[in-house]
This record gives sequence, C-alpha cells and structure tokens, in this order.
Amino acid sequence: MSASALLKARVPRPSYLKKLAKAEDLVPLFKNGCKIGWSGFTGVGYPKMVPTALADHVEKNNLQGKLKFDLFVGASSGAETENRWARLNMIERRSPHQVGKEIAKGINNGNIKFFDKHLSMFPVDLLYGYYTMDRKGTGYGGKSSRLDYAIVEASAITEDGGIIPGASVGASPEIIQMADKIIIEVNTASPSFEGLHDITMTDLPPNRKPYLIMAPEDRIGTKHIPIDPERVVAIVESTYPDQTTENAPEDETSRAIAANLVDFLKHEVNMGRLPENLLPIQSGIGNIANAVIGGLSGGNANFKNLKVWTEVLQDSFLDLFDSGHLDFATATSIRFSPGGFKRFYDGWENYAPRLLLRSQQVSNSPEIIRRLGVIGMNTPVEVDIYAHANSTCVMGSRMLNGLGGSADFLRSAKYSIMHTPSTRPTKTDPHGVSCIVPMCTHVDQTEHDLDVVVTEQGLADVRGLSPKERARVIIDKCAHPEYKPILQDYFDRAEFECLKKGMGHEPHLLWNAFDMHKHLSEHGTMKIPKWA
Amino acid sequence: MSASALLKARVPRPSYLKKLAKAEDLVPLFKNGCKIGWSGFTGVGYPKMVPTALADHVEKNNLQGKLKFDLFVGASSGAETENRWARLNMIERRSPHQVGKEIAKGINNGNIKFFDKHLSMFPVDLLYGYYTMDRKGTGYGGKSSRLDYAIVEASAITEDGGIIPGASVGASPEIIQMADKIIIEVNTASPSFEGLHDITMTDLPPNRKPYLIMAPEDRIGTKHIPIDPERVVAIVESTYPDQTTENAPEDETSRAIAANLVDFLKHEVNMGRLPENLLPIQSGIGNIANAVIGGLSGGNANFKNLKVWTEVLQDSFLDLFDSGHLDFATATSIRFSPGGFKRFYDGWENYAPRLLLRSQQVSNSPEIIRRLGVIGMNTPVEVDIYAHANSTCVMGSRMLNGLGGSADFLRSAKYSIMHTPSTRPTKTDPHGVSCIVPMCTHVDQTEHDLDVVVTEQGLADVRGLSPKERARVIIDKCAHPEYKPILQDYFDRAEFECLKKGMGHEPHLLWNAFDMHKHLSEHGTMKIPKWA
Repeated sequence: MSASALLKARVPRPSYLKKLAKAEDLVPLFKNGCKIGWSGFTGVGYPKMVPTALADHVEKNNLQGKLKFDLFVGASSGAETENRWARLNMIERRSPHQVGKEIAKGINNGNIKFFDKHLSMFPVDLLYGYYTMDRKGTGYGGKSSRLDYAIVEASAITEDGGIIPGASVGASPEIIQMADKIIIEVNTASPSFEGLHDITMTDLPPNRKPYLIMAPEDRIGTKHIPIDPERVVAIVESTYPDQTTENAPEDETSRAIAANLVDFLKHEVNMGRLPENLLPIQSGIGNIANAVIGGLSGGNANFKNLKVWTEVLQDSFLDLFDSGHLDFATATSIRFSPGGFKRFYDGWENYAPRLLLRSQQVSNSPEIIRRLGVIGMNTPVEVDIYAHANSTCVMGSRMLNGLGGSADFLRSAKYSIMHTPSTRPTKTDPHGVSCIVPMCTHVDQTEHDLDVVVTEQGLADVRGLSPKERARVIIDKCAHPEYKPILQDYFDRAEFECLKKGMGHEPHLLWNAFDMHKHLSEHGTMKIPKWA
Repeated sequence: MSASALLKARVPRPSYLKKLAKAEDLVPLFKNGCKIGWSGFTGVGYPKMVPTALADHVEKNNLQGKLKFDLFVGASSGAETENRWARLNMIERRSPHQVGKEIAKGINNGNIKFFDKHLSMFPVDLLYGYYTMDRKGTGYGGKSSRLDYAIVEASAITEDGGIIPGASVGASPEIIQMADKIIIEVNTASPSFEGLHDITMTDLPPNRKPYLIMAPEDRIGTKHIPIDPERVVAIVESTYPDQTTENAPEDETSRAIAANLVDFLKHEVNMGRLPENLLPIQSGIGNIANAVIGGLSGGNANFKNLKVWTEVLQDSFLDLFDSGHLDFATATSIRFSPGGFKRFYDGWENYAPRLLLRSQQVSNSPEIIRRLGVIGMNTPVEVDIYAHANSTCVMGSRMLNGLGGSADFLRSAKYSIMHTPSTRPTKTDPHGVSCIVPMCTHVDQTEHDLDVVVTEQGLADVRGLSPKERARVIIDKCAHPEYKPILQDYFDRAEFECLKKGMGHEPHLLWNAFDMHKHLSEHGTMKIPKWA
C-alpha cells in the first residue's frame, strides 16, 4: 500500500510507512474480549477509521453482542464511533466518561458495565493495572499488565516516531504506555498541531516527581508523545475531521447566573481575596459556561490579563482571546464547533502561542489546581441545602455522562463554585424540577468541597458556615420562589426534630428526604403539597 | 515576673522573657466574639494555661454564654480545655475537627456552629480569609484579615524567636501567619522537640510552589515556625504535659480485619502491583489501625523496610520501629499514650532520626499523597453497597468528630481502603447495626474514591468494577451473614425495578433506601423483616 503525499509529509519515519494499512484489513486483529484504549477527549482527537471498520464488520456479519470490548477513552469520543459501538452491542465495559444517547442507554439498561472515575485519576489507575487486574500486575518485580490495543489519532508523527496529537491529549500518554500494540490513525483532514502540546509521561511510585508548573503557561514536557516504535503495528490514514456540533447558546437564565457570578468575583477582588486579574479560571462546556466566560469581559466587568487552567476550551474562549482579555489558556482538549475550528486554524499564528494542551492527568491535577488557586465552576444535576452536589446520577440511579473532572476541580480549587438554574422543566410544569433539594439522591461533591452555589435567583456564599447556616442561605438566595417555602418547611421541621433528639448538626428528616423526588416521579413536579 | 531556670533555657531570646506573663493576667485581653486559633492536633501540642484561665474566669464569674469565641484548631485539642469550653458555652464557632463528649453535645444541640473541613484544606482556607470574611480580605491589594489571637504551645524557642512545636504541628504555621497577636505557652513539663519538625509556611496563589517531597524522609523546610516577634504579646510557662489516654486495644474483630488486609497486600505484591516493601502507609487511630500496624510485622507477613506517610502516629508505630520493620515515619502529630511518650523520650536517640513532624497541610497534602502512592486506610461510620462511605454524621445528622483527613487520603491514595467491623451492637442486638447499608445517610467519600472495603468477614476489591458488580462483591465479601440476605434482597429488587425503567446504572429503591435505618430507630436493629 502506498502513502499519499499528504501522509508522507506528516509521517517522516519510513519504518512507519511500511506499516501503512487500511482500517478494514485490521479488523481480524480484534478478538472478542480485547481491552482497547482510544485517544480522544470531549469528542475531539478520537480515532475514526478503525472503530468504524470494526462497527461495519459487526453490522455486516451480524456479530452484535458477539464481538465485545473493554473500551477505555480519556473522556467522551465521537458519537459516530462510540455511540455506534454501543448500538451494535460492542462494548462490554467502559470508563471513565461518555456522552451520547446510545451509550447512556446501554449503561442504564444493564448492557454496558460502566464506571466513572475522576478524570485525573483514570490514567494513573490504568497504569497501576487496576483495569487489567486479570492480567498480572504492573511495574513491580518486572511484571507487566497491558491493554491489548491502543488506537490513537495523531495529527503528525515526529522523526523519532513520536505522536503529535490533535485537538486533545486526554489519557493518550498512559494508554500508549499501557498498550501491547499501537495503531496510529494519522489525520490528514486537519492541520498538524505541532507545538501546541506539552506532554508528560507517568512513572510509578516511588518514582513519581512533582509537576513543576507554577503558572498556566509553564512547559514541563515534550511536544510529542514518545513511543516505542516496535509496538506500532499499523498506521492508518484518517481522512475526516472531528465531528463536533455547535455550542449551546446562552439564554436569559444562564446570563442571570453569569451576572451573579461576575458580581461575586468583583466583590472578592474588592475584599482583597482575589488579585485584579483573578486567578486561573476553570470552566466547563455548555450555555452557563458560555455566559460566564462572556460575562468576564462584558458589561461592567472587564477583567484583564486573565488566564485559564481548565479541562476543555469551547468557542467562547476564542472570543475572550480576541477581545484582549485572555492572556493564556491551557486544557487537555479544544472542543470547538466546526466554525470555531475554522476560526482557530485561520488565526493559528495568533492563538497557538497562547495555548497549551496537556494530558488530562495534568490538566485535572489536584496538585496543580490547588497550587494555582484555580476558580473552579461546574454544573450539577442537583445541589442540596447543605451544599452537597450530584454530578452524575438522576434520581440516584440513572447515569448521565459521568463524573468527569468536576471533583478534580471542585475538591482542589480555591473557589469551588456550582452554577445551575434553580429549576428545570418537566412535561407538565415549567418548574417541575427544583435543582435545590433537601438531600441529593447521589453525592459526588461533598459539603466539604463547595464554596459557592449560584442560580439565576442569587448566589449563596457558604464559606466558613455551619450546615444549618448553609441551608438558610442556599434556600434564601438560590431556590426558586415556588420552592423556597417547601424547602424552608423541610429545613424547619428537620431542625426541630433533630435538635430535640440531640442530633441537630445537619438536620434531616431521613424518611422524607426524597419526598420531592417521589412526588416528581408520581406527579411530574417536585411541588409537594406538604411534608408527611 | 521572673522566669524559671528551665524556662530561660528554653527561651534564649531576652525580648520574649520581658513579655513573660501569668495566664490569668491575660484574661482581660479576650473580648466576647474574638476569633482565636490554637495549636494542637489529635489532643497533643495544644495550649493549656490560657484556655484554662479563661475557663476559670467564665466559671467564677458566671459568664457562661456571655464570653464566646470562634475557635480554630488544626484538629482536636485536649478534653480538659476544649471540652470544658464547650461545657461552659464559650464556643460560638468551631472548625475543622473535634473530639469529646461535651463539644459533640454542643454541636448537636445547636449551641456550637461547627463545620468540618478537609484537614489539608483548612489551613489554606483560613489563610484565604474564608473564616474571617467579615474582616476585609487577605493578601491581595495590601488588604489583610486576621484572627485576633493565636495561642500556641512551644516546646522551645529559637534565638531568632521562632517556635519549636511539641508533639504536633497541625495548622500552627498558618494560624500564626493569620494572627494579629500571638501568645506562646512554653511547655517545660516535656522535653524540647528540637530537630523533629520540618516546617513550611504558606504563600498565596499565584505564588505557591510545589512541595518538593519525593519520599517520606525528605526535608523541605525549617526546624521551627518562623514568627514576627513584634506580634508576640505574651509568653506563658506551661507546666503540665499533654493529657493523652491509652490506645484502644485490639480485639478479635480488628485482628480478623487486619488479617484480611495483610493478605490483600501480600497478593498485591505477588501480582506486581506493589513493591516488596509496599508503599508509604497511612493509618489512623483506634483498634483496627493498631491491629493492621501489628499485622504488618507479625505472623507470616513480615514486610520489611516500611515507610509511613500519615496524619498521626500512635504507640503501635513504636513497636514497628522496635521490631526493625519500619524505616521512616512522618506525620503531623505523635499521639502516644503516657507510657508511649515515656518510651519515646527514653529512646529519643533511636526514634528521632527516623521521624519528622510536618504541618497538616503537608502531611495531608493530596499532591504528596498521590505522588508517593500512599496506601490509605480509614474507618467509616458506614459504607454502602456501591462503595460510598459516611465518615461523619450518624443517621445523616448527628456529628461524631468530623471529616478529619479521611478524604485527603482516600481521594488521593494509590490504595483507598475502608476498614470496618461488619456490624456494631445496639442495646438489644449484638449485631443491631450493619456497617454495610443500601445507601449511606451521609456521603463523605464517593464511589469514585474507594478501592477496597474490608470487614472481619472478608475483603471486597472494587477496583475497575461497575456499581452493580461492586454491590455484589461488597455484599458477598463484607456484609455480616445476618445482613447478607437483607442487602441482597434490596439490591435484587432495586436492580429489577431500575432496569425496567432504563435507569439501572446504580439501582436504588429511593423511597426505601433508608428503611434499615428507620427500623433501627424504631426497633433497635437494622434487621428489617422485608422490603416494603
């Protein structure tokens, strides 16, 4: 098989070009039960050709449920690969995060064994051999335990055979370290991302070293992922770009949340608890995150010389660069819309010097997040009156996407902020779900982790408050007016009952704590007429 | 006032001796509403003279409830001070941890505003100004916000006025950094601890630096806490030692738990996931911890060249030193029994070179815990079938002691282990409480944090398992035989109901999840006859 000129330019290593293969020819390599790692994070930088060939093979030969794999990807992959694998019942086990209707369905109907894990910790646990426990240990006493295959997308290859990733780094360094055999998909549909990455590999304790990063712009690694060329079994040319979609637009609610948050940050500067250019910002994906990022440079805010230390960047950060408010940003993934990617490629000379992509172990590192004093902001499923938050399981049981990096940031940030609309609609009630509840049905962030809860109604600053003080301020500032009396009534009754019994530190009516959720499931709204 | 010869030998700084005072003379300094920080951690190294004088003053003048303070101590103080303050209603607010009947009573009857916080994070949040929010900000724009007083016990003073702590460091460095005025109690009843400490102070971001510790024995700081001598307002001689008690003895259950755990560690070495001398060990206080530490050197275990990276050391570590199994140990506190302290002082030349005490921000640092790959072990109130754990609130509401360092270690350790008896007795049933429950009534450690749950019944290794797999193995290996069918029935019903509704990732019967707890409160046992 001969390589295209474009591919040759991206792969300046002849021994690799000898391994050039078509994706469909690699299908027989993959046996039922294989453990596979993919590159990719938040739907960018994932392999496309081999996963698609495998799905085609299963579909064509009616192998649904007969060719199943353990699949490990740093976070979510592309819908056209991972979701299709889920629909074709090709996923036996999946960790640590996912996005997509079909894969969520498979997880919640019992088809896919999924576990979510802190995104900073997943690559380390992988390296510890925790996900290949049936295969001997890792590292100590010369024993090794590996994944069968890593399928990794590269935007280019270095002369010594290293991988230059594309729009994400994710868990690729550790997946490559752990893989017996490596398949590289070189994507020639997008430009080479050379120079945009700062790559570190992972040692096992007692040989681990500090991450000597003191500011978002600090480089501590290499520009490529070093690799053992003898473990590369095939090179595949990939000819289509990451399939991203548009970002969710701002709306009135998200703008109101952002306004409350920006007011708070200004207050903190005035009080001398934040420098004038704030501290490095972490922000997620979605319309609230968009509104917050917009709010930092708009209206009467006008923060200057901002820096970003986050997991994933979306289009709004390009605006923040363009408006001159953002000095530097680093993440493990840039998940732009198609238009955003075009804008990014067109402005490469401008953006690239102010941007670094790192592995998710570094972007989400508690060590660095705490050292830098990051301002961490995330959206939960629900928050309770004592400031616990549910980030993963609706009604305690139904998995949405997974924990992601929420707890990496919210545990270690200087400011741990949860932003959410105060309510969400149901079919019958535009405010049928209160996002402020008496007790979370699943806890991912504890009361010991959160500093601030903010909704479109207001902002509750719970730093240094006891649980009962927290409850009062969260109900008062954050709950929707239709739920305020219901929540206050719960708290008053719980306080009365628990103080009476000498157990009033964090008062609960334990047998009624989920009554609002029960009413929702029976009547389509959390508005219970009274507490039993 | 003239200084004793003993005191003069400990305080080689004349300007301090001019500030020598009697504790009772300092009482008028303390106004109602003062914010006060004490040294101390796990009942050692706390100030004794001034707190006692203040309590005497309140008692003598019937000022109960009229002279109240915000009290911040790294962890628990001595019962004769803190508990007495609680009994005399002298504590308005307390953080981040406490031990003692009277103070727990005050917290649970609503008298004391208590909040527990990760022990690694408490000193940083204090420095951020989060506990002095009414007093302007901290650090940025030249603004400062301080505690009114730090009362700190020293075992000696350096020539430049620095403090050499005693048996604990705790949050003293940051409390001293944050205090307007400093009172030093120099304890002449115990020896000088000079040389035993490795002290680091805390910078604010963006000026924080990595902790360059790559092994438990690494020194990165000074041997004393540096101090601004002009902020020292008084020196008081303290003439009685830390009032510690005997350690809880091992029993059959704790020995069985330890045996299961030691078997597991040997298995991990055999599988190549641990080196032969393990990795640094974190262990708590109590009989299970005692049995585990004993188990490492006893029977057929015989681990050699062990190192310890932990929060607090108890007597059993002296045994481990003496038997030649332990090479080095570091913590923020040595909480020995009176006999243990005597043994330690008598063997100083032997123990001191193999021991370092650091601040709790360092001993509990997620950065270092993760880097070293610590083996973390803690005891919970209860664990649920999906591997969440409650470390703080009985029945979701009644505070025991606080979070402590449990989440610092369990989030970041290489091995995150919860050890607990499978049941606890009630008045009417020797197995009235199952420590394995369907759903924790309070969550401090999430399912994303725990690797191993172990009881006297067996050990559940939940690494890499999905929630439903975890439930099966925890019920099978860890639950008491009398509760196994009850828990299995809950899980089977929950799985059936939730899969039916397409929400079966982590199956719960949300309206019945606390039925075992309800039965306990009504019938004195968790043995419910059937699930509703």
